[in-house]
Amino acid sequence: MKERVTKLDINTPILDLNDRLAAENRALCDEHGVFVLDLMASPGAGKTSTILATIDMLRDRYRIAVIEGDIASSVDADKIKAHGIPAVQINTGGACHLEAAMVRRALETLDLAELDLIILENVGNLVCPTEFDLGEDAKVMILSIPEGDDKALKYPHIFQISEAIILNKYDTISVFDFDEGAFDEAIARLNPKAPVFRMAATKPVAQDSGIAAWTAWLEERVKQKGIAQ
Amino acid sequence: MKERVTKLDINTPILDLNDRLAAENRALCDEHGVFVLDLMASPGAGKTSTILATIDMLRDRYRIAVIEGDIASSVDADKIKAHGIPAVQINTGGACHLEAAMVRRALETLDLAELDLIILENVGNLVCPTEFDLGEDAKVMILSIPEGDDKALKYPHIFQISEAIILNKYDTISVFDFDEGAFDEAIARLNPKAPVFRMAATKPVAQDSGIAAWTAWLEERVKQKGIAQ
Repeated sequence: MKERVTKLDINTPILDLNDRLAAENRALCDEHGVFVLDLMASPGAGKTSTILATIDMLRDRYRIAVIEGDIASSVDADKIKAHGIPAVQINTGGACHLEAAMVRRALETLDLAELDLIILENVGNLVCPTEFDLGEDAKVMILSIPEGDDKALKYPHIFQISEAIILNKYDTISVFDFDEGAFDEAIARLNPKAPVFRMAATKPVAQDSGIAAWTAWLEERVKQKGIAQ
Repeated sequence: MKERVTKLDINTPILDLNDRLAAENRALCDEHGVFVLDLMASPGAGKTSTILATIDMLRDRYRIAVIEGDIASSVDADKIKAHGIPAVQINTGGACHLEAAMVRRALETLDLAELDLIILENVGNLVCPTEFDLGEDAKVMILSIPEGDDKALKYPHIFQISEAIILNKYDTISVFDFDEGAFDEAIARLNPKAPVFRMAATKPVAQDSGIAAWTAWLEERVKQKGIAQ
């Protein structure tokens, strides 16, 4: 058990520094009237697809930018840029999560006066991103159907700290052994206030994809911050 | 960049301690003629299903135990025990990976003289488990089709350090937009020696599930260690 105690001792000053930088990020974005969403999920749950679908729904009304966090590559930022939206790629090297300092450097490359909404795509991970305040206004998570209904039991913290939960790849539910009753029960216990959006981010909005319900919620949150369309 | 340097400084002694304990775990398992497999993957990629399928294929010839690493719950260990195999559940609290010290405590609860093969199910994560030697004989990873072909580009390290790669949920490939050519190309570049097993861990072996090819490889590795059937 010795090394776990050591870890706690050394993480404390890092988290203190992170919290200070996160507060500064938050103040900076508040000042410019920018809403910041931190989107968290496992690798391959559909974070980038969800961001692309969200952009399509909201780009007429809000000026959007995306900050992409990945261990390596610029695959995701390239996809966002191809969509005609400013995107900053952060390569974390080995780090399994974004930190406030990384977000700060990305914010410095954006013209905040020309933005209303920034979406942070965190590194694919259900554990590490939960510990780090980035200065966001809301943390939202995605679970995808193929991952299984038991993930809320096995990774409870991320389900507890998310303001909303997207249940993505919902169109594939017939292919997988996903117990919706067990999932709903776990969410009702862990985070009863969180809305759950059943969604298929890669499907056209018209096909009852659930995208409109999700973006309506997000838009409401953006408005709560006093950001006009 | 300041806090990243701080992090490196403090992780070094932890990793040194981990490496020492991992070497001791390895010596202990060598002494008892036990092969140790560290199985890594994202949440929901099919680690537990793969372990259950592996048990079914090898339990007639080898005495098997499983050590389960999870943030919380004993869902997985319960499934393994229901299969009639000894299972030890490690709850890591917040930690996003197993460490050698945790594995040591689990090994101490098992009768190593009565075992040939121990499978460690690491915490669902493509990043953190790569940094920690647990004393295993082989690290193997699972990627599942729904996660997408670009994961090798985005999480290269885990693909590089794995001796073999299981491409699971292969039966669902028609449902997802998974570019096999791009995936194979990435593996050929990152880790050309690693065999890739296309598999459907939850499907019966008879249905060309790929399980037999995977367990034949594992059996070969166990035999290389001089462990008789």
